[in-house]
Amino acid sequence: MARGEAPADRYVRGGLLLNVYTGEIYPAHVAIKGERIAYVGLREDMVGPRTRILEATGRTLVPGYIEPHAHPWNLATPAVLARHVLPLGTTTIVGDNLSVYCLAGPRGFEKAVGVLSRLPLKFYWMVRVHAQTRAPDEPRRFPLPALRRLLDNPWVAAIGEVTRWTDLWAGDRALLERLALAPQRGRRIEGHTAGAKPERLAVLAAAGLTSDHEPTTAQEALDRARQGIALMLRQSSLRPDLRALLEPFVKSGSLGRLMLTTDGSTPAFIAEHGFVDGLVRLAMEEGVPPVEAYRMVTLNPATYYGRDADLGGIAPGRYADVLLLRDLAEPRPETVIARGRVVARRGALLARIPEPRWQEIFTRRACRFDRRWRASAEEFRLPAGPLPVIRLVSTVITALEERPLQEGDLHAALLDRRGAWIATTALAGFAAELDGMAATLSTDYQVLALGRRPDSMARAVNRLLELRGGVVLVDGEQVRFELPLPVGGLMSTRPLSELAAAERRLKALLAARGYGFHDPVFTLYFMVADFLPAVRLSPRGVWDVKAGRILRPSRMRRR
Amino acid sequence: MARGEAPADRYVRGGLLLNVYTGEIYPAHVAIKGERIAYVGLREDMVGPRTRILEATGRTLVPGYIEPHAHPWNLATPAVLARHVLPLGTTTIVGDNLSVYCLAGPRGFEKAVGVLSRLPLKFYWMVRVHAQTRAPDEPRRFPLPALRRLLDNPWVAAIGEVTRWTDLWAGDRALLERLALAPQRGRRIEGHTAGAKPERLAVLAAAGLTSDHEPTTAQEALDRARQGIALMLRQSSLRPDLRALLEPFVKSGSLGRLMLTTDGSTPAFIAEHGFVDGLVRLAMEEGVPPVEAYRMVTLNPATYYGRDADLGGIAPGRYADVLLLRDLAEPRPETVIARGRVVARRGALLARIPEPRWQEIFTRRACRFDRRWRASAEEFRLPAGPLPVIRLVSTVITALEERPLQEGDLHAALLDRRGAWIATTALAGFAAELDGMAATLSTDYQVLALGRRPDSMARAVNRLLELRGGVVLVDGEQVRFELPLPVGGLMSTRPLSELAAAERRLKALLAARGYGFHDPVFTLYFMVADFLPAVRLSPRGVWDVKAGRILRPSRMRRR
Repeated sequence: MARGEAPADRYVRGGLLLNVYTGEIYPAHVAIKGERIAYVGLREDMVGPRTRILEATGRTLVPGYIEPHAHPWNLATPAVLARHVLPLGTTTIVGDNLSVYCLAGPRGFEKAVGVLSRLPLKFYWMVRVHAQTRAPDEPRRFPLPALRRLLDNPWVAAIGEVTRWTDLWAGDRALLERLALAPQRGRRIEGHTAGAKPERLAVLAAAGLTSDHEPTTAQEALDRARQGIALMLRQSSLRPDLRALLEPFVKSGSLGRLMLTTDGSTPAFIAEHGFVDGLVRLAMEEGVPPVEAYRMVTLNPATYYGRDADLGGIAPGRYADVLLLRDLAEPRPETVIARGRVVARRGALLARIPEPRWQEIFTRRACRFDRRWRASAEEFRLPAGPLPVIRLVSTVITALEERPLQEGDLHAALLDRRGAWIATTALAGFAAELDGMAATLSTDYQVLALGRRPDSMARAVNRLLELRGGVVLVDGEQVRFELPLPVGGLMSTRPLSELAAAERRLKALLAARGYGFHDPVFTLYFMVADFLPAVRLSPRGVWDVKAGRILRPSRMRRR
Repeated sequence: MARGEAPADRYVRGGLLLNVYTGEIYPAHVAIKGERIAYVGLREDMVGPRTRILEATGRTLVPGYIEPHAHPWNLATPAVLARHVLPLGTTTIVGDNLSVYCLAGPRGFEKAVGVLSRLPLKFYWMVRVHAQTRAPDEPRRFPLPALRRLLDNPWVAAIGEVTRWTDLWAGDRALLERLALAPQRGRRIEGHTAGAKPERLAVLAAAGLTSDHEPTTAQEALDRARQGIALMLRQSSLRPDLRALLEPFVKSGSLGRLMLTTDGSTPAFIAEHGFVDGLVRLAMEEGVPPVEAYRMVTLNPATYYGRDADLGGIAPGRYADVLLLRDLAEPRPETVIARGRVVARRGALLARIPEPRWQEIFTRRACRFDRRWRASAEEFRLPAGPLPVIRLVSTVITALEERPLQEGDLHAALLDRRGAWIATTALAGFAAELDGMAATLSTDYQVLALGRRPDSMARAVNRLLELRGGVVLVDGEQVRFELPLPVGGLMSTRPLSELAAAERRLKALLAARGYGFHDPVFTLYFMVADFLPAVRLSPRGVWDVKAGRILRPSRMRRR
């Protein structure tokens, strides 16, 4: 076809090409065969009678955007996310496998990878080598043979993210052994070095981390770049830091390796600010030259992941992921071509993005809620006397207070999905006037119950069990809010805009009850995340992160 | 060690670090454990009583240079080349396997890879999928299983170079099938698109070529970059084009992906101009900012080959390949550290670079000269009447003249190493006053004989057989020059400076006899190279490249 001896399937005619390789902008047609670009230039001899022509006169063509580090299970399924962000120009996502892997196991995850690799939006994956929360069965859940097999999968681009940088610092052999699987296979290792001081970074770089998306200040970003760690500068619902992060790089002009990420942004944030398109806009507002801003979301991540022969530019051989922009200053595309097909126009999705058959993926016992058990108010009551109180000091950071329950504290409990055990303590600083709430929004996939009224908490948990996962908020005896998340207890198949509306409602309800931070979804997710300071709920009980010990053990329940 | 809890093996103290990742220059110590860098920064707590300290005060530290595309069998063995260029700062070479593979076969080549991967200078490889000269036994010589196995070798970085771009244009299935082995394994495909017109490049990019080093003009370079093909800008003995090639990129400032190469430079050229160090100097002279010039020979090739976690920067985890420069303006280093050891100082090699046991690698019958046969003057004589005369029009380009032998023509013959066959014709434009010459400098490893006097030619061939390969020049009956190349008939284990002197003597002798071009070594190499226009000698006879046919068949010899 590129020889002009066979017709193109599709021919994008008359546009201005942003060539990310040379930094030039010039007129060029793009001819597509199947899923790939076969020709870019001024010849027209591959236009046949059945070639579908897309007029691009007056439009600028840029490569489809790449999100190099997303968590595509944040209230929405990957397919829901794809349906929303494909019209915004994102045609590739490198996603975290945590939730699907943990709930469905390696085979279930592989099944999901297979289905999702055929969507118009391409999902590549980073695969975890450990959970968010330590548990004794972890080696069984992350066996080496399964990791090896996953890393050989062509849709797996990296190990990551590796949240336990303190274990790397300590030289944990099992972890280092797992990381070594990546470079042997030409894969990357996504770091998570939140809070690591500059002098500790050399150890983390030596351990093999190839990227980091956790810097929250320009200095942290520079410290990591200096150690040879590639940067994914972040603008997310949890950490909207991009403007500050870009500053030193804009000043020095050293923009060549930078990438941008939305990380784990929630539906409400994406609905408001867009996805990768929003990052490009923000970068240009901060003074990044347009060509560099577009490279940061196309060629740079493609190169970082060693996929630049497939992705990241409009050139022969690459996937035909092409955006038609009205203007380089407006990264939200008018038309989106992905894998050779026109998949969106003026913000409207035209392609079918089928939902994987989740019931065939989440087949493990651990995924299923045992609906036979019920919570009672009694089990949430806390004893008199000193407790290891979890004090929320920011959206996700906690401090430990050892004291009796006091006015304004909530009862907090983590319950096994199958009702086998419960861990309880007091929580301060969340939302003092919350009667009861239950959620399966937890990165270790248990049931979290919070509230000042144990009866309201029990009501919330029991409604949650009926919904088979999600979020339930109760005032007194009355269910005031519910968001069913039937896919693994984490995700919904409803449109992202609906999920965003639900998220906003939840946030408003919590704010009205005293929640003073900005992202309650992540507060819930990370209540069990033992890689964050200082005290967490865990299946074994209340966990002191720094001391590495249980402060108040969990107990078995009668089901 | 990076934690400061174990002593460094070596500590480079007090230098200024050129950080290729951020583009900064700032003071930093470098601590080394074994072959790798473990720490870069200002801490000194890993200096123990047995740590060897290298004072670098007043020196700038830059990463070891990477040559991304070399032919390390050009008169010198890879080890000879390494001994010469390591003191000049080159610590990594991606080399062409053509000669060793063709002569020793896949297993012999693998043996060489194993030995050469342990030298202080690291040899990575591109592996050929076809020969320089078409022959019926080619599929047998490049079997798919052997190629698969080679591409899985961690020291193999690419397929290449692929000289038959016209086959790619034609859609040759066997070739495309071979190329497809590379991306599946995260390997690159090195192109060779000499003379391909811009409108043909899309086909070559779509076929999978990921780089090209053949542009000889700025326009050709830009044409290839626009198609997403990475550029290796060349300054070689055959094509010293770098200044012109750099110009448009310096103007546009789009330098981020550029690499530089010496390609197949001969010993005399390297002895005079240096190796990668010479490329850096030249780039800076042409206005490339120093940081970018150093990136072109460090981070950029490391990134291109997906080896940036191992190579191309001074950062933890990377090979400890560090150069101490007196000044960034002078890329020839004062001290060279490679794989953690000081291997050169002030141009003097300090490390032992052992020669592979070539007799255990070149074990194939094809490698051995059958010393029992002798050439006679009679067999070089040409018949009266029209001949397909090879007219040399530049160092390596020829034209066809169909006419009888005339004054100033030489007799030219290609003979089988084992004396089985001979192909003869006339050669014009080489060196009219050359009596006789014989050489095994041929990229299909046969014996080339040239001369105006058949008896001198026979004398040269017979002396060459005694030497078991090399170059012999004869005046009348007298051997005037000989350069033994006992390793495969192509390479010597003598120092590069001696080989350079021999090359200069040969060139002077040929110039005195009428040779008017600039690189006789390549004229000899490429006399059989049927990917170049227009007529070549080949085992089957005189070959018309464009028509793809034999103009004058070879004949069997009596041995």
